[in-house]
Formats: sequence, C-alpha cells, structure tokens
Amino acid sequence: MSRYAPVPFPQVKLEGQFWHERLDTVLARTVPSQHKKLEEFGILDSLKLPDPPPPLRFPRHANGFTVQVFWDSDVGKWIEAASYALAHRRGEDIEAKIEAAIDDLEKAQAPDGYLNCWYLGREPDKRWTNLRDNHEMYNAGHLLEGAVAYFQVTGRRRFLDVMERYLDHIYATFGTGPNQRRGYDGHEEIELALMKLYYLTGERKHLDFATYLINERGQQPPHYFDIEREQREGSGDKRQPYVFPNYEYSQSHKPVREQNKVVGHAVRAMYLYTAMADLAAELADAELKRACEVLWNDVMETKMYVTAGLGPSAHNEGFTHDFDLPNQTAYAETCASVALIFWAQRMLHLDLDGKYADILELAMFNGALSGLSRDGEHYFYANPLESDGRPTRWEWHTCPCCTMNVSRLVASVGQYFLSSAEDGVAFHLYGGIASDVEIAGTKVSLKEVSTFPWSGEITIHVDPETPTAFDVKLRIPAWCEGAKVAVNGDTVDVETADRGYLTIHRSWSRGDIVTLELPMPPTRLYAHPGVIMDAGRVALKRGPLVYCLEEADNPGGEVQRLKLPRNAELRTEASDLFDGIVTLKAEATAIEESDFHQLYRTTPPREKSSTLTAVPYFLWANRERGSMVVWVPEALG
Amino acid sequence: MSRYAPVPFPQVKLEGQFWHERLDTVLARTVPSQHKKLEEFGILDSLKLPDPPPPLRFPRHANGFTVQVFWDSDVGKWIEAASYALAHRRGEDIEAKIEAAIDDLEKAQAPDGYLNCWYLGREPDKRWTNLRDNHEMYNAGHLLEGAVAYFQVTGRRRFLDVMERYLDHIYATFGTGPNQRRGYDGHEEIELALMKLYYLTGERKHLDFATYLINERGQQPPHYFDIEREQREGSGDKRQPYVFPNYEYSQSHKPVREQNKVVGHAVRAMYLYTAMADLAAELADAELKRACEVLWNDVMETKMYVTAGLGPSAHNEGFTHDFDLPNQTAYAETCASVALIFWAQRMLHLDLDGKYADILELAMFNGALSGLSRDGEHYFYANPLESDGRPTRWEWHTCPCCTMNVSRLVASVGQYFLSSAEDGVAFHLYGGIASDVEIAGTKVSLKEVSTFPWSGEITIHVDPETPTAFDVKLRIPAWCEGAKVAVNGDTVDVETADRGYLTIHRSWSRGDIVTLELPMPPTRLYAHPGVIMDAGRVALKRGPLVYCLEEADNPGGEVQRLKLPRNAELRTEASDLFDGIVTLKAEATAIEESDFHQLYRTTPPREKSSTLTAVPYFLWANRERGSMVVWVPEALG
Repeated sequence: MSRYAPVPFPQVKLEGQFWHERLDTVLARTVPSQHKKLEEFGILDSLKLPDPPPPLRFPRHANGFTVQVFWDSDVGKWIEAASYALAHRRGEDIEAKIEAAIDDLEKAQAPDGYLNCWYLGREPDKRWTNLRDNHEMYNAGHLLEGAVAYFQVTGRRRFLDVMERYLDHIYATFGTGPNQRRGYDGHEEIELALMKLYYLTGERKHLDFATYLINERGQQPPHYFDIEREQREGSGDKRQPYVFPNYEYSQSHKPVREQNKVVGHAVRAMYLYTAMADLAAELADAELKRACEVLWNDVMETKMYVTAGLGPSAHNEGFTHDFDLPNQTAYAETCASVALIFWAQRMLHLDLDGKYADILELAMFNGALSGLSRDGEHYFYANPLESDGRPTRWEWHTCPCCTMNVSRLVASVGQYFLSSAEDGVAFHLYGGIASDVEIAGTKVSLKEVSTFPWSGEITIHVDPETPTAFDVKLRIPAWCEGAKVAVNGDTVDVETADRGYLTIHRSWSRGDIVTLELPMPPTRLYAHPGVIMDAGRVALKRGPLVYCLEEADNPGGEVQRLKLPRNAELRTEASDLFDGIVTLKAEATAIEESDFHQLYRTTPPREKSSTLTAVPYFLWANRERGSMVVWVPEALG
Repeated sequence: MSRYAPVPFPQVKLEGQFWHERLDTVLARTVPSQHKKLEEFGILDSLKLPDPPPPLRFPRHANGFTVQVFWDSDVGKWIEAASYALAHRRGEDIEAKIEAAIDDLEKAQAPDGYLNCWYLGREPDKRWTNLRDNHEMYNAGHLLEGAVAYFQVTGRRRFLDVMERYLDHIYATFGTGPNQRRGYDGHEEIELALMKLYYLTGERKHLDFATYLINERGQQPPHYFDIEREQREGSGDKRQPYVFPNYEYSQSHKPVREQNKVVGHAVRAMYLYTAMADLAAELADAELKRACEVLWNDVMETKMYVTAGLGPSAHNEGFTHDFDLPNQTAYAETCASVALIFWAQRMLHLDLDGKYADILELAMFNGALSGLSRDGEHYFYANPLESDGRPTRWEWHTCPCCTMNVSRLVASVGQYFLSSAEDGVAFHLYGGIASDVEIAGTKVSLKEVSTFPWSGEITIHVDPETPTAFDVKLRIPAWCEGAKVAVNGDTVDVETADRGYLTIHRSWSRGDIVTLELPMPPTRLYAHPGVIMDAGRVALKRGPLVYCLEEADNPGGEVQRLKLPRNAELRTEASDLFDGIVTLKAEATAIEESDFHQLYRTTPPREKSSTLTAVPYFLWANRERGSMVVWVPEALG
C-alpha cells in the first residue's frame, strides 16, 4: 500500500455547518481576542529586549519559578494559529501583528543565535542551565512551529531565518560530540516542531537533531538532569525542581524505546509520542513504532477518559495509575486532548488503522473542543466530567497554553479530514468538506456533504478531471454498526472493510457519487470495572459525541440525582439550541430530597419519575452556571 | 434539673475489654513511643534555649513558614497525655521525662514571662507579630493543658506556675485596655485551655480573658489580623498568609455570635466551639448557647461524615460546602473528630440531650479511634472513607498534632462515660466501667458490666452506702430501637425517655441491678441525596460502629466492585480477629472484570454472586495494605 499523507488544511474547505461555524468563530473572535490578551498580560511586551517591562504580579513558586518562562511559547503558538487564520482569509491587521512580534524577536536574538526572551531579559548568564524545568527548547519548538506556519502561509522567510539561526546555535550546543552537552528539554515539544521543519525543508540536520533528542532522552547514568542540577548547585543555585523530583514526570525515566507505561505530565507525553511516531515513520524504525504502539495501547486500555481527556491529576498535570479516572476532579487538560489528536494523526499515517482515527475523532469532538466556548473567547484548562457548577470557563489563564492550542487546532482542522496517496484518497472525518487533490496524476474534486456529527447520512461527490482508477477509502467508525455504502446507488459490501477502512477501488468518473449511511443511535457506554468512579454508571454517546446532563436542561437541582433505568429508551430530539443540535432524552428517575431532613437515615431516599435531557459534552458550560455529569447512575429496578 | 458535670476520668475504672485494651495499649506503647519520636525529631531539643539545635530539614512554605512553630504544642500535648497515663499508673520514667521538659521550659521562659520556644530561639524580635499564622497562643494553650493535667495528677505546681507567669504576660499584652493589643490567635485553642485553668483555680482572670478572646474574635473593622499585617509590612516583613487570605479559615470572619455556618479549618472550628459552649454554660450566655446550637445543627445536617469525620478538604484542612463529603479524598483529620468529642461533651453538659452524646459516641468509636493503630504506634492524620490501598498508617507525621490528640483522648476516656449531679448520675457511654461517685450526700458504687460495643446487653450495679433516692439517667442511643430496661427485673417504660435519657428515680439500695438491653441489629444508612458521592450507596452500621469492607476479608480485588442487594440480609458473626470482634456478612454481587477487555464498552459488566464481609471502620488498615470502602453500592435488581 502506498503511504498516505494528510491533505494540508488550506486545500480542505470546510463547508459543513459544524466546522464552518467553529472555524468562523476562531477566525473572527478567538485569534483576535487572544492577541489582545497577549498584550494585556504583558506577554508581547516581554519580547521587547533589552528592557522588558517589569513582570506583572504573577504567582511564583517557592523556588522562584514563574509561568513567564513559557511566554515565548505562547507567542509562537499565537503566531501559528494566526498564520492558519491567514490561510483562510488574508488580513492586514493580523499580518501586521505577527510582523511586529517577529520584529521584536529578531531584535532580541543574541549575536550567537540564542533566542529565549525570559533568559535574555532576566537571567542572561543562566541560559541552558536548567533544561529540566525551564522550557528553553520547548519555547524554541513553539516559536519554530509558528515560523513554519507563517512561512507556509505567506512565503515570508524572515521568522524562519531567525529560528534557523537559533537552531544552529542549539545544534552546536547540544549533541553527542566532544564539546557538546547531552541535553534535552524537560518539556518535550521541539522534537515534533523539528519534524515539521524537516518536512518543509528536507534538511537532514533537523531530522538528525530530532533523532538525537529522542534517542538521548532518559539515557543514564548519569542522567542529564542530574548533571545539570549538580552544575547548578556547584554555582550556588539551589533551586529545587518545579514540580517533581522524579523523571517520570518528563518521560525521561528510561530511554523512550524501553517505555511501556504512559507516565507523568500528559501534554509532555503526548508531544513526545507524536514526535516518536513521526520519527518511526521517517526512519522506518520498527522498534520506535513498537514503543508507540505499546504506549498507545496503555493509554487506550487503562488511562483515557471517555471524552478522550487525559491525565486525571492536577498534581502532576498528568497520569496516575491504571483506571484512576475521577470525574469531578478530572484534570484532563485541553492541551492533552489536542496533543492526542496530533499523536493519533501520526499513528494513523504510520499505519492506516481506523482505531487511530476513532480516537482522533473522539478527542476532536469531545476533550479538545470542550476547551473552547461557543463564543470563542472563554476556555477550559481542565475538563472535568462532573461539576457542581463551581468551575466555569476562563477568559484567560495565567498559563495560557490551552487557549492557543485549541485555536491552532480549529484554524487548521481541515488537515485531519483527508489523506491522499499516489493511488487513492482516504476519508477520516466527516462533516462537509470540499477539496481538490491529485490522485494517480489526475486532479480530483472531492465534495463530502453531510450534517455530521448530527446525522450519519453522507454523500461524497468524486469528480476526477478524467476517468481514473484509484482507491477511495472510507473510514467506518468503530462506534458504528450497520453502516451502508453505495456507489452511484450500487451497494458496496461493508463487510470487506479492513481495520476501519472500506476501500472502493474502481475507475472513477465525473459525477460519481458515494453514499454512506452511518447509523448513530444513542448508546450507553460502561466503563471497565477497574474505574470504580464509574461503577453503576453509564455514559451516553451518539456517533462521535459524548453527551452530558446539564442543569440548564435538567432544572431543579436534579442533575446529580437523576438515574437512568437500564431499559429506558434513549430518544434523539432535534433542538435549536446552539444553532441546531441533537439532544438525547429518556424517561428517568430522580432521587427525591424534599423529605430527607437528616444527613443520614435508615430508609432509602424516595424516587420520582423525571425526564433526562443530555447535550453534547463539548458544549457544556456555555449557558448559566450549573451542575453537569457525564456518567449517569443507572437504575436496574 | 440540677447541673450535670463529668465524673473525672481518674474516678472511672475501665474494666470492659474494649476500652481496657485501648487504654493499656496507649499507656504501654503509645505514650512512651511518642516521647521517643519527640526526641528523634528534635522537638524536645527545640526547648533547649538559648541554643536550640539547628532545624531539621523540614518542608518550608514559600513564605518561610515551618511546622516547627507548632512544636511547643506537641510537647504540651504529650505532657498532657503522659500525665493522664500517670493517673492510671505512676511511673518514674515518665515523670522524669515530663520533669525534664518542664526544666527546659522553665529555663527558656523570658524574664517577662513570655514562653514560646520558636520565637525565643529563632526570631526573638518578632514575637506577637503574627497571631494569624504562627500559633503563639495556640502553643500556650496546649502547654497550659499539659500543666493543668500534670498538676491535677501529681499536685506539682512548677509547670503551672511557669504557665501562669506566661499568662500574666499575655493578659498584660492583649485586651481592650488603652495600651493593649486587641489580638487573638489564628488557631483557637487557648480559650478552652483557659477554661480548664479557670475550673481548676476558680480565678476570674482566666475566665475573663477567655471571654475577651471569644468576644473579640472576628470584630471589625479594622480586623486585628489586618492591623497586624500592616504593622509587619511596615517593618519590611512581607510574608504572606500561611494558607488562606480569608478569615473564614480561622473563624474570624465575623463575631462568633453572628456565625451560623461552620467554615474554615475544622480543628480550629471545633476548639472554638468547645470554648464557646464552656463559656455559654459558665456565663449563662443564651446568645452564645444559641450560636453553638446553630453551628451544631449546621455540622450535623450538612457537613459530617457518617464516621463523624469532619472537614472534607486537604486544601484548607477543613470545611467546604454543604453535602461535600467525598470519600476517597476525605481529609477528616483525626484531631477534628477528637475535638468534636470535646465540643459534644460541652454541649451535653450545657443541655443534657442525648443527641450530643450520640455524636460523642459516634466520633469516639469511629472518626477518632480510627486515627490510632491497633499496635498503638501508627497513625492516620486523614481518615478517608474509601481507599485504593495506597494510604497507610504513618509512624509519625511532620505535623504530629493528631498523634497526641488521640493518645490524650484514650488516656482520659473515662471522663466521657458518666456525669453526676447533686441528685443523680447519668450514663452516657457504655462499655464496662466502675466508679464511686457521691450523689445526694451518699457514696454510690457504680459498676456497669457489658461487652459493648459488641453487644448491647448491659448490667448496672448501683450500690449506695445507704439507701438513697436519686436519679439514674440512662442514655438510650438514637441508633437503638426497642431498648428494654428493668430494675431488679421490673420493667421500666422506655417510652418515658426524654431527649435520649431514661430517668429512673427511686430510692436505691445496695444490690440494686439495672439491666439494659440495647438491640443492635446491623443497619443500612442512606446519605442525604445532596451527598452525591454516596448516591446509590449504603453504609453499614451496628450500634455505634460504622463498618467498612477491607480487602483482607474480601479478597480478589473485589472490595470496590461489591454491591449489596437491598433485600440481602445482614448477618452478624463473632470473629476472633483483633482479640474478638463482631463482623457483618451478607450475600452480595461482585462486578466481574475478567471478561472486560476494553476501557469502555456498550454492554454492561457481568456480575457474579459473592459474599461481603465488613469490619468496624476504626480497625481498618491494621492488616496488609488493601482497598477499603465504607459506602457500598446498593443493588436493587
């Protein structure tokens, strides 16, 4: 089989209502408002060297650690998101803002190429002394992603040149050579950014340095972070680790090929695995691929929320033990679900298996999208699966990583829909797109028409310029039973689908129409009994969407007191909420509290009949504050 | 009705197996081993002024706060527990150790009477600059409780004299006079200690200062803690609050008589309310009594774990919102349940209502006793109601407050059993005691024989020296239905019991026997529906004992996967575990995980039949590590 590669997002037009609305909101509101926040919080000013304004009153940890060490990354991520926005609509204002930031970065860059504004502005003598905690390469990686995106969209090289000078400095400083330090960053990110640069330029040195970073990670003894710490202590700097003294936190407890359990900080883990999958493909490294698969299985079998949220604990912003998936205290950082999408996409192109696209879709429609409000200007950093109404969306966050992770995701979401190969095209996501791709030497117009995820009725127009034989691969989601496919009205046997994809090989001609019916009845999901928090509970799902109960639809303080009888029928109902969604309804019982006058009593609470209404999880907390649950107690009686 | 007062513990002999064993363990193992720990951790050395040894490597907060500021209180509490131990058995070794600590304290005392070893040893110029955070009066209070106890047991005045000098210094420094500061401690404790001193000496000044502290608390504007903070900042000390910038944390958000919701740090709250109840009785202050009652009801109706644990949150070591009673993350500090016993005892003597004794008993047998291991040398600081087996008992704690709270409780537990008045005696707790009390001018020998809490069959021998008419009040616990009482075989109508006490008035003669049958079938408790964590779950209770499921008795990883059918019979079974206890058994269903190979699936888990075995909660975590649950899911099917 020839290798499939994503069709770049500028080639994919989002015409379906669902994504069209999200993209429009991000372009019109999210990206501009984020720039305003970067200004207000002094993040843009922090680039203005040599005299950055004094720091704002930010919380600092005991050891002097401040979130301001991340700020370069926030600028890089905003430039990336804004560049994607430009690819949809050129806008002088946005371009001017990007250019202004690049001006500052260019001026800030040291003669030797070094470019980290925190260190240059505050601790110029301490650069590269604490890779474990202080994110210098992480920042470089995000700036680099911004530079790559900006170049791809505008063709302007200046930012890329700045970053390539910085990279040359980094490559000279770190590595296995005689005068180099064998360092790598505590927060993985630069590895995947380097792979983007490598794909863009084809320059081997970027691939080589990414390979070095991946190979060096977790090598010991001695552990690089120990060497570094001893050097710091030797120079009188006794600051202790930011969060954790163990190296699992940064996935550097052992060489990556030996890692078989997903541990530590969730976002770091996902960025690492993304780069590992990139490298496994690029180097055809079977051992690295195997490590990716083992880690993938570990997440999927024991560590992922039903929403594709990752990392239950706020303590380490990450993973704990198998089946530890508390709902109300779920951390499930937006960034982690976004990064899971990156990883899933790399796995999918390493091995075209629908199981990766299933998770990509799940994360997209649930754990990632839930991080952005309907109005495009409020955010969740943590994405709990149960709420007493206290948590609410933020306008901003002292550590704003999630805000621009979700905007860059949506602004480039088209790239996840389609892949093409020499001899075919593969549809991964559905939702109404149009794209022209070249397959087997022919330009093929593709138009997928649907109201997915609200309905599974999908029509695909396949219009090659000249009749041409190639594969059309259609993903048949794992959540779907009884899918039907036809080409020009002739049924195709869906049973021939292999690992999640139905391949239709034929000679395609202008006017060909593929129809796809993906039944999406509401379903109940049960969690593994090891997930004790969900014992006796069900999650409701329809198609790719996980549903939740919100107080707005289930008033009277009932949200956390509703039980769904096992035999109750789940009905779908079209609703005009949020410009048109599908809600789920069922007859339910509600635990009565009106006659419960003590804290504890020997008779069970009474129950009364009620109706349960569920809305898609990603839309929660867009109305008045109130309780929310994903896992609903099931009544057997 | 004449006023009932507790019969002091040295007059109450614990003959029943249950308390005899606990007391013996505390005397033989807990008190001596605690002294050893105080030595090992440098706590005793910290009294050796002017040159205390350098501090150990203890965690310090960002603002320089260290748990070492509490250490005087730990010494005070150990002296108190050790003094109670001496009341049971004189022991030269213990006495010598107490005397050695008193030597150090006497030497450390400043010429003006001031006596806080942290400040004297480390920051002598900063004394009384941060009442909000640094516990000077709290430490003084605990030292004072130690001095009172030691004097009561030995008649030796030296420590009391030291403390009275210190108090004179405090009284001169704080108050409403022209040259006094209107301060009070951020951590309440001294108030109740002053009441003990007042009861001992009858000296009005101690009562007056306790009254001043209670009345001054929460007065504003200006708030004393703000005045103090401004003074610190004026002198360049910018340290921020230890934990919380709000005054609810220390119950100083408003004057105590206006407080109607229980808030903040749980132990502080309980110590405050204890003193409030003492003062309400002593001053016949109806408003203060009313405030105590309102606060009592608030705890009982919305904030107490079924084990009488208090304070769900580790964050503030205290209270959150109504019905917020998470099980696995329950903080429920041992000290808070011990302090609830203090408060309940004061409320009971303010108003002889069985509802207070019910909670005293509940806290005693569950939330407080669970803090001490069977071997007497391991502790829980937090007392969760569900565990995955990770938390385990500590040998010691960097903040060892709970360790000596539980030892001083058990070493003086006799004081909670009986109260006497001019014309009667009241039995609050049962469990096998003997005591001689004077009632109506006659010495009366009382002997209560039972194996309570394992059985509710109780025999009480009432032997006055001469036939005398008086009341015998028997507590009929609220958990008990169908109690039977007889005097010399003649039935007494239990229906005449009023507010939890059955009063038997008659002329008593030597040889009189009261029999009391308290049926204690195992029962299910249901939590208020507002406690969403316990929805669909039941707690098992028998008599005063809350039960739990432990892995040792329910092997195979089933503890958190067992469901108790609503119609399943709960059986009692005598067991020789822990020298003889009663376990509970029932047929149950266990959720199967052997065929559950995914994290989520659309078919419910299978169930198989199983047997559930429950043991008293206070005994948990005395065998191998394993899971534990108090609230068991109930199956209706």
